[in-house]
Amino acid sequence: MSILAVGSVALDTVKAPGGSVDEGLGGSATYFSLAASLFAPVAVVAVVGDDFPEEAFQIFVERGVDCAGLERRAGRTFRWCGRYEDDVNVAITEKTELGVFDEFRPVVPESCRDHPYVALGNIDPLLQLAVLEQLNGPKFVAVDTMNYWIDRQRDDLAEVIARADVLVVNDAEAKMLGGEANLLAAMTRLLELGPRYVLAKKGEHGAVLMARDFEFVLPAFPLREVADPTGAGDSFAGGFLGYLAASDDTSPANLCRAVAYGATVASFAVEGLGISRLAKLTRDEVEERLERLGDMTRF
Amino acid sequence: MSILAVGSVALDTVKAPGGSVDEGLGGSATYFSLAASLFAPVAVVAVVGDDFPEEAFQIFVERGVDCAGLERRAGRTFRWCGRYEDDVNVAITEKTELGVFDEFRPVVPESCRDHPYVALGNIDPLLQLAVLEQLNGPKFVAVDTMNYWIDRQRDDLAEVIARADVLVVNDAEAKMLGGEANLLAAMTRLLELGPRYVLAKKGEHGAVLMARDFEFVLPAFPLREVADPTGAGDSFAGGFLGYLAASDDTSPANLCRAVAYGATVASFAVEGLGISRLAKLTRDEVEERLERLGDMTRF
Repeated sequence: MSILAVGSVALDTVKAPGGSVDEGLGGSATYFSLAASLFAPVAVVAVVGDDFPEEAFQIFVERGVDCAGLERRAGRTFRWCGRYEDDVNVAITEKTELGVFDEFRPVVPESCRDHPYVALGNIDPLLQLAVLEQLNGPKFVAVDTMNYWIDRQRDDLAEVIARADVLVVNDAEAKMLGGEANLLAAMTRLLELGPRYVLAKKGEHGAVLMARDFEFVLPAFPLREVADPTGAGDSFAGGFLGYLAASDDTSPANLCRAVAYGATVASFAVEGLGISRLAKLTRDEVEERLERLGDMTRF
Repeated sequence: MSILAVGSVALDTVKAPGGSVDEGLGGSATYFSLAASLFAPVAVVAVVGDDFPEEAFQIFVERGVDCAGLERRAGRTFRWCGRYEDDVNVAITEKTELGVFDEFRPVVPESCRDHPYVALGNIDPLLQLAVLEQLNGPKFVAVDTMNYWIDRQRDDLAEVIARADVLVVNDAEAKMLGGEANLLAAMTRLLELGPRYVLAKKGEHGAVLMARDFEFVLPAFPLREVADPTGAGDSFAGGFLGYLAASDDTSPANLCRAVAYGATVASFAVEGLGISRLAKLTRDEVEERLERLGDMTRF
């Protein structure tokens, strides 16, 4: 089944542990789409400026991502500059230039409104709601967010979350939004907002999936080196939703398996600078590492 | 098979998230012994002062721990005062009073020198070596240590580690001793010191077991509340070595299973203040939670 992904497409300048990236293709919708398209057809809804390089556009095309909803506007593409220090789990933002992203009003093309799987990346919750209004009853909606919106638009965000099947956040966001220092306690609170599942990504420490009646915990695939953590969370979400959409099975057992796919795809994504590793990743490589992760966690 | 445990027996005063403990029974050998004795016979080698309360002594007796090597000396028992703040993974030491522990020269009773499984808690590496000299060729030796000895006696410590079957450390200690910021890279370095296995405990994030030819990763059992993290690492080591000794099977697959036992016992230990939960824990409770942990991690 096909996936609709809404979020940011950006040009990232990053000082990462494994080297530097200068205006490389980035953004939440980019990492998500490149990951999810390993499994299922993906259509992206995002905005770029008239400075967006043709080569970057080709990266989507090569992976068969439907770019009908990738709007090109007069102005500059969203740019993010950041770096990582000792704790590779924490990105330090040096500069954010919103450019045309500041006026992003997502329009879902007619041809994409029936896509059953939907990923709402971390944009303004009101825009996330506006996207949902344009859709014809999606089967499974994943919602991401970030501290910025938790601080500023908690009520709007709660409305989006109530309409989500799964809330996908990192552990710090889960604790902040749930108002609890303990991750599991925070996730329990988040379930009260209405989503069927909460998926908390813990970076190098793995992930937790929670529903009212079960919990699934998974360590990350152990890596000896991380070249660039940028986009790990979005790659995780892409692998997760991509596998779900491909199998079109939203049973609890299959969601757990989808989490393992997410973790596996993310483990590859951070091995290269920017999108470099993700862009050349194959489904076979994912399957092989997923099997190893299964072996490594079985007792 | 039986276990010999060497380490500290202390009186702990702790401000923990779940309340306070005032001079409660603590110390690495205490938590280790109470955990390991759920599985196999344990003999403890440690020292206490003449102020050591009879009730505390009875806690060992009730669990069938052999106290022939628990020396009572004139003077004060080792006391530790600490607290936890926002990060429950980090104990903040307020005061350490070594008392008789300062002159601890472990003597292994004749009756305990053939115990095949040995746990050397985090004491001076020279004392750890002195214990090994007193033993009649143990089958499996687990060595713990801490930042204090890594800083001050790295060479002595390296000698102990070379003679260990498994080095059991927390993630911060592994990185410090291995000289790498990445845990897996640090553990790879630690294997070069000679032990067959390195087991890194990551607190609420689980554990990693590494040998030259395999890795095993396990998340912690998810808890909504942690009353007192004190002794979690020693309880982990006790559950790990206790299960190994009981099954007397040091194959890689059984070591992975032993890690799961360690994680499970530790998850109970932190649910009560001090040793309270651990002291009343039953093997049946461990088995039931271990099975749940298996279900929660399978995909």
